[in-house]
Amino acid sequence: MAPSELVDILSPNSIAIIGASRNPAKRGHRSLRKLLDDGYAGAIYPINPKESEICGVRCLPDLGSLPGPVDLALVCTPAATVVSVIAECAAKGVRGAVVLAGGFAEAGADGSQLQDAMLAAARAGGVRIVGPNTSGMFNTHKACNLVGFSNLLKGSIGLLSQSGNMTLSLVTEAHGNGHVGLSTYLGIGNEADIRFDEYLDYFAGDPNTNVVIAYVEGLKDGRRFLNALRRISPEKPVVIYKSGRTSAGRSSAKSHSGALAGEYAVSEAVLRQAGAILAHRSDEILPMAEALSLLPSLRSRRLAILADGGGHATVAADALSERGLALAPLSEDTRRRLTAELPPAASVINPVDVAGGTDSDPSVFATCAEILLQDPMVDGLLISGLYGGYAVRFSQDLLSAEIDATNLIGAMPRRFGKPIVVHSLYGALQADKRPLPILEVHRAGIPVHSSLETAVRCMQALAECGEMGRAFAALPPQRAQRGAVFEEVLARCRTEGRRVVLEHEGRASLRDFGLDLTPALLAVNEKEAEEAFRRLGTKPVAMKIVSRDILHKTEAGGVKLDIGDVASVRSGFLEIVANVKAAVINPNIAGVLVTPMASKGGVELIVGVVRDASYGPIMMFGLGGVLVELLRDVVFRALPISRNDAFTMLDEIKAKAVLDGVRGGAPVDRDALADFMVSISDLVEAFPEIDELDLNPIHAYPDGLAVSDVRILLTASSIVRSSKQGIET
Amino acid sequence: MAPSELVDILSPNSIAIIGASRNPAKRGHRSLRKLLDDGYAGAIYPINPKESEICGVRCLPDLGSLPGPVDLALVCTPAATVVSVIAECAAKGVRGAVVLAGGFAEAGADGSQLQDAMLAAARAGGVRIVGPNTSGMFNTHKACNLVGFSNLLKGSIGLLSQSGNMTLSLVTEAHGNGHVGLSTYLGIGNEADIRFDEYLDYFAGDPNTNVVIAYVEGLKDGRRFLNALRRISPEKPVVIYKSGRTSAGRSSAKSHSGALAGEYAVSEAVLRQAGAILAHRSDEILPMAEALSLLPSLRSRRLAILADGGGHATVAADALSERGLALAPLSEDTRRRLTAELPPAASVINPVDVAGGTDSDPSVFATCAEILLQDPMVDGLLISGLYGGYAVRFSQDLLSAEIDATNLIGAMPRRFGKPIVVHSLYGALQADKRPLPILEVHRAGIPVHSSLETAVRCMQALAECGEMGRAFAALPPQRAQRGAVFEEVLARCRTEGRRVVLEHEGRASLRDFGLDLTPALLAVNEKEAEEAFRRLGTKPVAMKIVSRDILHKTEAGGVKLDIGDVASVRSGFLEIVANVKAAVINPNIAGVLVTPMASKGGVELIVGVVRDASYGPIMMFGLGGVLVELLRDVVFRALPISRNDAFTMLDEIKAKAVLDGVRGGAPVDRDALADFMVSISDLVEAFPEIDELDLNPIHAYPDGLAVSDVRILLTASSIVRSSKQGIET
Repeated sequence: MAPSELVDILSPNSIAIIGASRNPAKRGHRSLRKLLDDGYAGAIYPINPKESEICGVRCLPDLGSLPGPVDLALVCTPAATVVSVIAECAAKGVRGAVVLAGGFAEAGADGSQLQDAMLAAARAGGVRIVGPNTSGMFNTHKACNLVGFSNLLKGSIGLLSQSGNMTLSLVTEAHGNGHVGLSTYLGIGNEADIRFDEYLDYFAGDPNTNVVIAYVEGLKDGRRFLNALRRISPEKPVVIYKSGRTSAGRSSAKSHSGALAGEYAVSEAVLRQAGAILAHRSDEILPMAEALSLLPSLRSRRLAILADGGGHATVAADALSERGLALAPLSEDTRRRLTAELPPAASVINPVDVAGGTDSDPSVFATCAEILLQDPMVDGLLISGLYGGYAVRFSQDLLSAEIDATNLIGAMPRRFGKPIVVHSLYGALQADKRPLPILEVHRAGIPVHSSLETAVRCMQALAECGEMGRAFAALPPQRAQRGAVFEEVLARCRTEGRRVVLEHEGRASLRDFGLDLTPALLAVNEKEAEEAFRRLGTKPVAMKIVSRDILHKTEAGGVKLDIGDVASVRSGFLEIVANVKAAVINPNIAGVLVTPMASKGGVELIVGVVRDASYGPIMMFGLGGVLVELLRDVVFRALPISRNDAFTMLDEIKAKAVLDGVRGGAPVDRDALADFMVSISDLVEAFPEIDELDLNPIHAYPDGLAVSDVRILLTASSIVRSSKQGIET
Repeated sequence: MAPSELVDILSPNSIAIIGASRNPAKRGHRSLRKLLDDGYAGAIYPINPKESEICGVRCLPDLGSLPGPVDLALVCTPAATVVSVIAECAAKGVRGAVVLAGGFAEAGADGSQLQDAMLAAARAGGVRIVGPNTSGMFNTHKACNLVGFSNLLKGSIGLLSQSGNMTLSLVTEAHGNGHVGLSTYLGIGNEADIRFDEYLDYFAGDPNTNVVIAYVEGLKDGRRFLNALRRISPEKPVVIYKSGRTSAGRSSAKSHSGALAGEYAVSEAVLRQAGAILAHRSDEILPMAEALSLLPSLRSRRLAILADGGGHATVAADALSERGLALAPLSEDTRRRLTAELPPAASVINPVDVAGGTDSDPSVFATCAEILLQDPMVDGLLISGLYGGYAVRFSQDLLSAEIDATNLIGAMPRRFGKPIVVHSLYGALQADKRPLPILEVHRAGIPVHSSLETAVRCMQALAECGEMGRAFAALPPQRAQRGAVFEEVLARCRTEGRRVVLEHEGRASLRDFGLDLTPALLAVNEKEAEEAFRRLGTKPVAMKIVSRDILHKTEAGGVKLDIGDVASVRSGFLEIVANVKAAVINPNIAGVLVTPMASKGGVELIVGVVRDASYGPIMMFGLGGVLVELLRDVVFRALPISRNDAFTMLDEIKAKAVLDGVRGGAPVDRDALADFMVSISDLVEAFPEIDELDLNPIHAYPDGLAVSDVRILLTASSIVRSSKQGIET
């Protein structure tokens, strides 16, 4: 990946502070003070017309007085001044500006205008903007701390956040209990210029960052974000905490940052699809990122548990299973070797319970850990219980043995390429009470947590990261070519000024796109209906009205099912037309569609595409039928989807077992289903004019599919403007 | 409740230590040392024939040398000695013994025999046994610490545990970060004599305990435990962590304590039914218990959030909603008063975001908290963010204002009868870095957690406790009277040596029990079948074989559905009999049951009762049909159930919306359904001979129910022994 143009700005070698101040409560003072205290090595230019020096640094009266271009300006002045400040920056060749002030797009229409004006000035002069309405940024590797937080722990975790307070939380947590520390923080603010995706690309190229945390309330351009995520996540894990998961959280998020927080089920699905590792609790964010930063990923979900008590062994086994991890079956050799090390009461079946076998010699932990990690079925190790506190619990005489064990264990993740995480009930003790061995576990680079559940969540993240690495498919190739039939349909819709694609048009378009649909014949009179019935093999058919004026066909009397003889076909045609004319004044009737009835015994499914305001087109897949409607058993993916995505969708619905055959029936044709879904994805990618697409129901059989209804709705803009638009990627 | 006979034993005024030792690594030494160090006020009698004194206390050579009866003996000697030790205790009038040794029932058949012998000696002499195979007990209010843990924080939380290590975890956590402290710990061990339920009763009467924690792997007598839980939980909250939730955890639990860990869904349901508050994470156990100990319960699920940043407000709102809590709508008056206190950028819609309004004066927190708690719609308050750390984050000048605010806030739960919980990002800092105000929050009796999710879980527990108090129904009255018809059926089954109750017998019994079933007529020849068809109104019927030899009726060709005319009824009868005779050699045929077909449009349900090895009879309720079978959408309750229990079961199934009517249909008759379930509960309570009962499917309609199949299986013992057994309660 080409180095980001943001490098100079976010690792700046010169900084101007616009609105530098002598008042210690002001950002224009605190930031300057922090740069000086931390020994920032670049040039610093405080700018304030009223001061000659601040904190011993010479002040410049204005931007024009700068000796030459600078990499970054920190703009501490109020919103009203910002447009002219940015124009001056542009004039002076300032490359980037961090704009702290609020009062822009988040504050209503006037603020939006101000933001547009600022952006225009920035674009005209080639100035990139961080913010506005941001808490700022820091880069610990440059000693460049523009937020003024104290106690920054320097490390390799990059942080993107839409909330300054969440950043303060993570900084405080990293300082108090952290293992790794932070590299660069970027306060996203209003995303006026630089957006989430561009920051992600920056971190992809930042040598000081190996894991990224993103606190996201809403994304201005979710589709670009997903693409950036697809680029970075195979190289560097990205832990995302998406807030606004519930309607309560969403309404709060809206009033906070003005960002669109979207339906969480959609966000969760598409972020995962693009490679994100999602944190669901705020107290798990940092531990997950630390584990991903320190440890190799899990090659499988099979772990060993090494506990020094039955209670912890049991609780750990539960916590593991509940998070989708598994206890590795231990080989006979492993069990034999463990038995030789441990007392008779020990359990050498995973979870391993040393049953007092370490009480007098904690170095046995290292021996057991080594035996377990040598087992090829074991891909990671969770140590749970008192380890790290033996010298406290039993006797100070054990201290050196415990520290020796820690040094051995600390080297094992690298030696075996397998992660180790420690849950220790001494892990959270305050520093003055914290046993030395716990500090040693920290120092050895092994995450240690007093919460067993947090430790297990770390392992789960390592498993997800491993799977991402294996299953990751880059953006599928752009196979999407526009078909001639649908082009004609579009032209007709434009001419007629309608957004509704009629069912026979939709079917013809899908067929033209290579989709193998059940036949459907449009009849414009009862004679054609009879002919259609014969051509379809005189088997029972469904008949339904095709009219731009009828949205709810059944309610309008426009549908007849299971018509099995010629007379009923003819009378059915006439009845449908009469019903529809009775229901709507002077309807435009294209005809009546005649289709074979779906065979019995299939599984009723739904495939749909809707356009998300942020993520773009989203495919929905789920079971049809009334019960599943009640259960909302549906899953989502952003387009374009790969074949692998399609298969994972089939696996994610709760009632997925029906796809394997109900009550002894044969499984549905998963390959046909996946191919079908990919083709629909390609179609919608090729035709951005499609606003919604709904195939419901689809019947899936052991030997293929039958699509019973096709609804396509076009975007409002597509029927008034030219369709010659590129696809934004 | 009468004072427990365990009081003298568990609050002992005299203690004998059998196997007292000079070796500091031995329990017989550590426990003695601890009693002396802690200033235990009662008499202590070390017993060891080889020593004259230990730790300055005179040693007795044997139990016979005791000057008189003692309340409690701590037995530190090996398993092999225990039977004679207990016999000696009995002879000397020792009231209770804590038996530490393992090697009893948990260790196999020989151990079981040893345990039986010990128990016989104890029962013969009136000695009550704690354990064996236990880590012991402590009572902080008596300075009686027989487990030898250091750093016990004395308080009001009682602890029952099947794992010594989990106890050590909780003790360590309470010491390091705890708010409340522990009263008495009882290590359950093998439950040879004193069982979980009796300990619960003890805590019900213990004036030093106001909340109980139970760590449960399995229960020897779950039904007694549930009854004890029903007694204590209206007075004192009981927080239960049930391990062995997953098959991985279960197999581990079995190898650990030999206890039966049962199906977790069943355990969870019946424990809740009896009033337990369940912890699902081990790191939530102590915080939940502390909150319940310190704070008034929530009167509703409506809370206010007071945050000092949009990020925390959003994350807190999500966490709250995800745990079933709600944001209270604030009154206009409340919003007006908040607006007057806070800057214009503040959000005065719940969640309240002070938006910097507290930065220069944290006492505004107290003002806002008071305004919020005065709102009658607000029943509790969650403070989230930096509160407790303003003096650290901003300026030491704020320290006194912050402490003043804390004192005011600390008094509010009592003033308003509404709980307050604090999430502070400074809550977990180590003692040397921890801000003074955080310590003050602790001291004021307000739980403060660095994990927002833990803080919210505390609020959820307070809501559950409040609901328990409101919804709690004591054990429903024993309405169960044995019906004459089922007595006859039982006699017949005994005579014929069969466990299967035939369907017509089952139906007759249920009808006799007052249950309004759809009619069903048994025909023994085709003529009777025809008559039955006419008597049922010549509407379509179902016909099925009734035979003790046919378990799977459909597979044997023994079922015909939707038979609508006389000829088909006659031929149907003959075909069914012929099919069955072809399927089974010489079957015993009682006849063919003729029933009306269930009407269309109902909701297919299942009601069943199975007998759990620990909890006794359990009712299962769920939706029928193939999809729900795949989704396992079922809920459980222990018998007897109340009408309230039945309604909660209807509300707990995932697809509960179908009960409200599908696609515009009318809702099913919930009253009829609840009454029906209570009657089934009464029936099974009256007849402990019933091993399993299965009503599947039941069709529920807006105006009643139709039961399509009745299966009853008797216990093996009930058909060989007399049925005149009392019902164990």
